[in-house]
Amino acid sequence: MGREKSKQDVIMLSVVQISLAALFIIFCRYNSHYEIGKYTMFQDVHVMIFVGFGFLMTFLRRYGYSAVGFNFLLGSIIVEWSCVCLGFYNMSDDYKILISIESLYQADIASAAVLISMGAVLGQTSYMQLIIMGIIEIAVYSGNAYLGLQVYKAVDAGGSIFVHTFGAYFGLAVSFVLNKKKTGSVQESNLEESTYTSDLFAMIGTIFLWLYWPSFNAVDLSGDDQHRAVINTYLALASSCVTSFLMSQILTDDHKFDMVHIQNSTLAGGVAVGTCANLMIQPYGALLVGIAAGALSVYGYVKITPIIEEYTGIHDTCGVHNLHGMPGVLAGLFGALMAGIASESLYNESLYEIYPALSSPTSQADTEFTQTGPGLGRTAGEQAGFQILALVTTMAIAVVTGLITGGILTLKGISSPLTKNNKFDDLIYWTLPNDIEKNTKITKLPENQAYDMTTVTK
Amino acid sequence: MGREKSKQDVIMLSVVQISLAALFIIFCRYNSHYEIGKYTMFQDVHVMIFVGFGFLMTFLRRYGYSAVGFNFLLGSIIVEWSCVCLGFYNMSDDYKILISIESLYQADIASAAVLISMGAVLGQTSYMQLIIMGIIEIAVYSGNAYLGLQVYKAVDAGGSIFVHTFGAYFGLAVSFVLNKKKTGSVQESNLEESTYTSDLFAMIGTIFLWLYWPSFNAVDLSGDDQHRAVINTYLALASSCVTSFLMSQILTDDHKFDMVHIQNSTLAGGVAVGTCANLMIQPYGALLVGIAAGALSVYGYVKITPIIEEYTGIHDTCGVHNLHGMPGVLAGLFGALMAGIASESLYNESLYEIYPALSSPTSQADTEFTQTGPGLGRTAGEQAGFQILALVTTMAIAVVTGLITGGILTLKGISSPLTKNNKFDDLIYWTLPNDIEKNTKITKLPENQAYDMTTVTK
Amino acid sequence: MGREKSKQDVIMLSVVQISLAALFIIFCRYNSHYEIGKYTMFQDVHVMIFVGFGFLMTFLRRYGYSAVGFNFLLGSIIVEWSCVCLGFYNMSDDYKILISIESLYQADIASAAVLISMGAVLGQTSYMQLIIMGIIEIAVYSGNAYLGLQVYKAVDAGGSIFVHTFGAYFGLAVSFVLNKKKTGSVQESNLEESTYTSDLFAMIGTIFLWLYWPSFNAVDLSGDDQHRAVINTYLALASSCVTSFLMSQILTDDHKFDMVHIQNSTLAGGVAVGTCANLMIQPYGALLVGIAAGALSVYGYVKITPIIEEYTGIHDTCGVHNLHGMPGVLAGLFGALMAGIASESLYNESLYEIYPALSSPTSQADTEFTQTGPGLGRTAGEQAGFQILALVTTMAIAVVTGLITGGILTLKGISSPLTKNNKFDDLIYWTLPNDIEKNTKITKLPENQAYDMTTVTK
Repeated sequence: MGREKSKQDVIMLSVVQISLAALFIIFCRYNSHYEIGKYTMFQDVHVMIFVGFGFLMTFLRRYGYSAVGFNFLLGSIIVEWSCVCLGFYNMSDDYKILISIESLYQADIASAAVLISMGAVLGQTSYMQLIIMGIIEIAVYSGNAYLGLQVYKAVDAGGSIFVHTFGAYFGLAVSFVLNKKKTGSVQESNLEESTYTSDLFAMIGTIFLWLYWPSFNAVDLSGDDQHRAVINTYLALASSCVTSFLMSQILTDDHKFDMVHIQNSTLAGGVAVGTCANLMIQPYGALLVGIAAGALSVYGYVKITPIIEEYTGIHDTCGVHNLHGMPGVLAGLFGALMAGIASESLYNESLYEIYPALSSPTSQADTEFTQTGPGLGRTAGEQAGFQILALVTTMAIAVVTGLITGGILTLKGISSPLTKNNKFDDLIYWTLPNDIEKNTKITKLPENQAYDMTTVTK
Repeated sequence: MGREKSKQDVIMLSVVQISLAALFIIFCRYNSHYEIGKYTMFQDVHVMIFVGFGFLMTFLRRYGYSAVGFNFLLGSIIVEWSCVCLGFYNMSDDYKILISIESLYQADIASAAVLISMGAVLGQTSYMQLIIMGIIEIAVYSGNAYLGLQVYKAVDAGGSIFVHTFGAYFGLAVSFVLNKKKTGSVQESNLEESTYTSDLFAMIGTIFLWLYWPSFNAVDLSGDDQHRAVINTYLALASSCVTSFLMSQILTDDHKFDMVHIQNSTLAGGVAVGTCANLMIQPYGALLVGIAAGALSVYGYVKITPIIEEYTGIHDTCGVHNLHGMPGVLAGLFGALMAGIASESLYNESLYEIYPALSSPTSQADTEFTQTGPGLGRTAGEQAGFQILALVTTMAIAVVTGLITGGILTLKGISSPLTKNNKFDDLIYWTLPNDIEKNTKITKLPENQAYDMTTVTK
Repeated sequence: MGREKSKQDVIMLSVVQISLAALFIIFCRYNSHYEIGKYTMFQDVHVMIFVGFGFLMTFLRRYGYSAVGFNFLLGSIIVEWSCVCLGFYNMSDDYKILISIESLYQADIASAAVLISMGAVLGQTSYMQLIIMGIIEIAVYSGNAYLGLQVYKAVDAGGSIFVHTFGAYFGLAVSFVLNKKKTGSVQESNLEESTYTSDLFAMIGTIFLWLYWPSFNAVDLSGDDQHRAVINTYLALASSCVTSFLMSQILTDDHKFDMVHIQNSTLAGGVAVGTCANLMIQPYGALLVGIAAGALSVYGYVKITPIIEEYTGIHDTCGVHNLHGMPGVLAGLFGALMAGIASESLYNESLYEIYPALSSPTSQADTEFTQTGPGLGRTAGEQAGFQILALVTTMAIAVVTGLITGGILTLKGISSPLTKNNKFDDLIYWTLPNDIEKNTKITKLPENQAYDMTTVTK
């Protein structure tokens, strides 16, 4: 790495942290209203963000330091920035952002969107590009979540629309632009492989994500809603795990299990059940959603990703389209369906807590719950429409702002894109231990032969 | 793996997941009664099942994918199946199984029994054999737990009898049958070894099991009982850790620590204190139980396992007899002893909550607590007898049904047993990365020499 | 390891565990007063001690078993011993130590001090030296904490003075003595290096420490204090993570990130904010403390540690001076500053709960809170003085008792110091798997060359 380049990185990173501190000085104060009971689920989400996403991305043979390290760095910046961005939409009368434990888990959840996008471009960017991407993304994320939740009054308990779908398509759009520019063809890199050990490290991430996902989908809920979210997510994850194994054996060439599917598609149930996590989908509904999501996700890895790459040039390193993109869309559609059939007979008075935009009875006029609250007087069908609208708007905003962000990332002077020879390589940014052969480059030989180490000049 | 065989696997796994979904559709609904306060300990148990057991079994050099992967798959199937099986003994009036957060942790606890059995046969079965074993085992587990807890009214707070002892002896019986059949001598496999890295991965499992074990023993309790269970388990684990190190240095040939003991025997205190976890054994009682369990467990690894293997042919891959079997029996005996000396003077009125089958005073006739509840009018001595009965019945049922299950697993057509050459090998079921020499077989050379890689045809 | 030596180890370890059991028999009973609500944060701290510290120290290429194993053994002994030592200062009327969940997390926190000291001497001691060190250290720790908290009435919510500063300087003093004695120059060992895999294992420790640190700083608090401690710790850790990356890029030779800094300095914010974690430092105060701590810590690794080593001979294997020592002093000074400016206008009546030694109003005479409690009638300025006194006393006691302890550890007959050839080597105490070349010694070649394996006699 050139001396000049590293100087620029240092200046930019300093500016970012100092600006964040300045924003905190001006705007952020303690909130005296909080629910300490949220602490347990907050910590579970916290583990998902930094252990889960961090280790899940360590699957590459020589990008483990960057995966867990840049996830750590990016996550830390983004949680600070999210406290500010999310707070801007909910300021106190004296223009202060009040920080409580709720701010912390909301910041963690927001950072999930950025780390999903990071998965799409993993190994294809400099770390400064990741940070710039994340800062722009959270600004857009906050606005889109405000639009969807406060304006449209859409419902999305586990953030499948506003976090997973948004993060995936934003990242894919960025990857599209990065791969259009003259950064060299990614597919030829011979470092984009796993090792036996790196795949086991990645499983640490997978399992912790899988275990704590019920907290992710339930942390912002309470009462029966929260209880249902825990049960539904637990069951959807169990069935998406089983289905991922099944589909992996069906779809891989030699009918063996592929670690990529086990590391990722097993989690698709958590995404797909997210929007409806708190709804009366019944335990079997959760199981069926998990089955659909697991199957769709593995199918995506085997069949859809290669097609997307061929026709659009998008290189989706972690396959976020299969873990977060398509399952997120599935969640959004399922959420619209459930909204369309929501009724007082199913939810009793809690209907108007779950869907605050409904206020008059959905089917008959003379129900006892008629006077529950203000609401917007929507019917269930109209709510379903707004659910679809939120999903479509989210995807559109993600793609458009992702493309723009990709353009910014490739502006000359703002950041230096990687070249073909240093993608997926920790060596660019990290002092590596002596067991890594620094001056050699691993070249892939014909199938079933061992590696050949040839010294190259770098 | 043959094409025909993988087709059969795919069909069976599909049938399993579809059947489970059908059972959920027919029987399972949300329970509106639940204790969300159980969520923390439930999540701890959840981590134990999937991170703890999963990584503990990654100690083999080329069976790490299978260890953590099949633990993941098997656990997911079993938690679904356990919700149904355990629910059958506690249905609502309209024949529905009501799912609450309690169902989820009970399902996790039940799956521990199956994963313990998996440890006994690790690397010796196809994955489909594991699934069939698990499905049968949970059906038997549910019945045995009902018999012991509801009929005998035995007390076993941490499941040492019904989970650990049951799972261990069931698995050992299965291993007995598998090794009687013509599947080749297991001991000669040169893949049944650890590497420096695989042993460290296994320690992730060990430590998480050790840390969260107090939750395992206390999740189903409340009040003082729960508090004592936390303290007793914490202390028993601390002393069994210390004692395992001590005994490992005493009993190994060159008086060095053996990773097998550290990974497993350190946990024996959690098993041995389980039945009495909530009782007034005092902190020192917990310490002494932990010392006894750690010592017994290491002794088992060094002295007893080789004898069992020689005389019965049982190959106990993870040594579950030493971690779950003998410490479970110790727990059961200690539980009988504590039941025999239980009295009102020790427990006050909580005596009849802890031992619901006692209802008249145990020593004097004119106590103030005489009228506490219905009960079965047992004396403390009788309760001790029922504790022993539960232990003996559990072992007998485990062995008999384990033998039958082993027989089923080796039926031609139902499953294909592994041959001598593909035991302890991820290669059969997994697409492996290129850093694994797929065409070579590792042969062990005389002591202190490095490995020699010789190419073999497979 | 000689037969005679291992026999001595076995006898000593037996004596330790038997003595602890005897102390428990005589003194320890259940406490019927407890707060089960502390369980969540207790478990988080528990994970920090055994996963966090354990894996953080696995970064050495051939000391991973010892790192995670001896951390496990030492932690287990120390939590037993801490229950007794801490209990001696708080006995019941009948001279019993009452064990509750509070005892467990206090024991875990105390063991952190010992494990920090272990970090200073990692790889330089026999395991028995570690145990002797830990036993002495906890006795001193308990007395010093009593002096600081009960006598001086100093305030230190997150234990930055009494745990981190104490543990660091105690360990450095021990290391000073060990390196003065004829145990060979440590710096020449060619095993004191990491590998790519060992650094990733260490990151497991780092991330879990980072995640659960808010629980460490908040577990012993309640209400608004606890809420502030969570927010402040979370934010200080985020900014110290960002700053560590920044400073690592600035200060390393080739302007790349150094894993040592990422593994350790990212955590310095948690230490530096500890003393003030519950105070009204505002979110930006936490951010700024984190920035200062991260910068100071990396600067310490790059510039200060080599100077200390050159002039004093202290070899600080994990760099605890940079992670716990200097950030702990920073925390203590910041705590004194905050005490000096504490006033009723800032804290209202909670001022006298936070600082129990204040009882008269700090600024004006006729406040409504004048009669709040007994207190010692201190002014805020006086409290600041006592905070400084606690910090200075702690450092002095740590250094003096650490030097004495180092002297005891090097007494002939009590323990056998390692020689130059077996430092940082698992081989002395562990049965290693066959993938480790037991008869070879790794020699470092000139930069950028691969390792050369030469057989040496051992």
